[in-house]
Amino acid sequence: MRIDIVTIFPEMFEGVINSSILGRARREGLVEINLIDFRAYSNNKHNTVDDTPYGGGGGMVLKPEPIFSAVESLTEQQEAGTSSPRVILTCPQGEVFSQAKALDFASEEHLVIIAGHYEGYDERIRQYLVTDEISIGDYVLTGGELPAMVIVDSVTRLLPGVLGNNTSAVLDSFREGLLEYPHYTRPAEFRGWKVPDVLLSGHHGNVERWRRKESLRRTLTRRPDLLQSMELSKDDRKLLDEVKREQGTSK
Amino acid sequence: MRIDIVTIFPEMFEGVINSSILGRARREGLVEINLIDFRAYSNNKHNTVDDTPYGGGGGMVLKPEPIFSAVESLTEQQEAGTSSPRVILTCPQGEVFSQAKALDFASEEHLVIIAGHYEGYDERIRQYLVTDEISIGDYVLTGGELPAMVIVDSVTRLLPGVLGNNTSAVLDSFREGLLEYPHYTRPAEFRGWKVPDVLLSGHHGNVERWRRKESLRRTLTRRPDLLQSMELSKDDRKLLDEVKREQGTSK
Repeated sequence: MRIDIVTIFPEMFEGVINSSILGRARREGLVEINLIDFRAYSNNKHNTVDDTPYGGGGGMVLKPEPIFSAVESLTEQQEAGTSSPRVILTCPQGEVFSQAKALDFASEEHLVIIAGHYEGYDERIRQYLVTDEISIGDYVLTGGELPAMVIVDSVTRLLPGVLGNNTSAVLDSFREGLLEYPHYTRPAEFRGWKVPDVLLSGHHGNVERWRRKESLRRTLTRRPDLLQSMELSKDDRKLLDEVKREQGTSK
Repeated sequence: MRIDIVTIFPEMFEGVINSSILGRARREGLVEINLIDFRAYSNNKHNTVDDTPYGGGGGMVLKPEPIFSAVESLTEQQEAGTSSPRVILTCPQGEVFSQAKALDFASEEHLVIIAGHYEGYDERIRQYLVTDEISIGDYVLTGGELPAMVIVDSVTRLLPGVLGNNTSAVLDSFREGLLEYPHYTRPAEFRGWKVPDVLLSGHHGNVERWRRKESLRRTLTRRPDLLQSMELSKDDRKLLDEVKREQGTSK
């Protein structure tokens, strides 16, 4: 997969795309990530890419020309026969990003991500250039660079060969819709706080049952919204009833 | 405000905390951001900070000692009379981050953010060290570093003096709960696509009304969940009715 990031702060991305799993995926050729400074596509000698809004008000608005030019130069570079890229704009007004969306993007050959840093984008960019507007959550950031990194990271880890078998389990657990059960490692006792006996018992069946139950408990307590959209097995419903009874009696 | 980020990939953060608005806020002393490599707090010669999980299964679990040592060394450095820091763990099982949470964190003197990169954390870290568990959204990332950056960015921009007057308007608009109206800037016509006449009219009242209506339209179309939790004024309800009638007739 090829991912082009269109930004005025390419230096913000270097640490993230060169470290850890993303860095290794790039070095192994599993993903190509390019940083494009779209100031280079400004049509004036001052390299300005924004202007004041029509209708007045504060802030600056990203002009249409530089961003159309930058994105079109990227699509022109594409090899013949490849499909048009998804052109993703990171912005607070976008669809809220999800694992389903990450899987959708991961099936593409070419993504262009526009990481803006402005009061707003000229509406014609949204209407005629962009295929997907994405928000990573209901909070305000100084720009679209971190959302672009979040998309790149979540998509790259889904590409074939990027994750080993150990870590792919995390994905499966998330797909299933429950929060993770509690984890414990050595020491068995730390400052008087002990690991639950069942995990030291060596009884595989009991360990599995405890983990499933704690996973259900955590989801019920923290994210009941996730439980509502799930179809639970008979065993899960039984475990969940146990959790509810325990919580009822502990009050 | 002081923010300490506890991580095994400090180099991932450099580009983000030294560029643009965060970089300027740091240079002007409006926020202190420290990167702490918690491998330095490992209690063994191989610098390992993780181990296999009790009860079996794949993946590695972050051990309690190094992270307790790292965080406690940070709180010991605090000046006398300052309150205990919030200790934030970034993880998929956490409370979903929001603008309300960013405002909450922005009112603190000291934040410690643990940016993990593991299958899981030993549960005793969650129970006895961490005050807040935060997830930035329902998608899977390769680690907790990007979520830590998101928290730092959203909190820093709320600190006094960090944003100028121009950009603080963005916050107000988000607080109010509606999505932004469409923006336009020069040229008035680009490839045949024109800016709406009302924005070129110079009639301030009509511009305001158009913007409010389009803000309501966009929120209704894209994020009806946000509208449900809002108390709309009489004028807003009238505009929203207009939008609904227009959408009804355009079908």
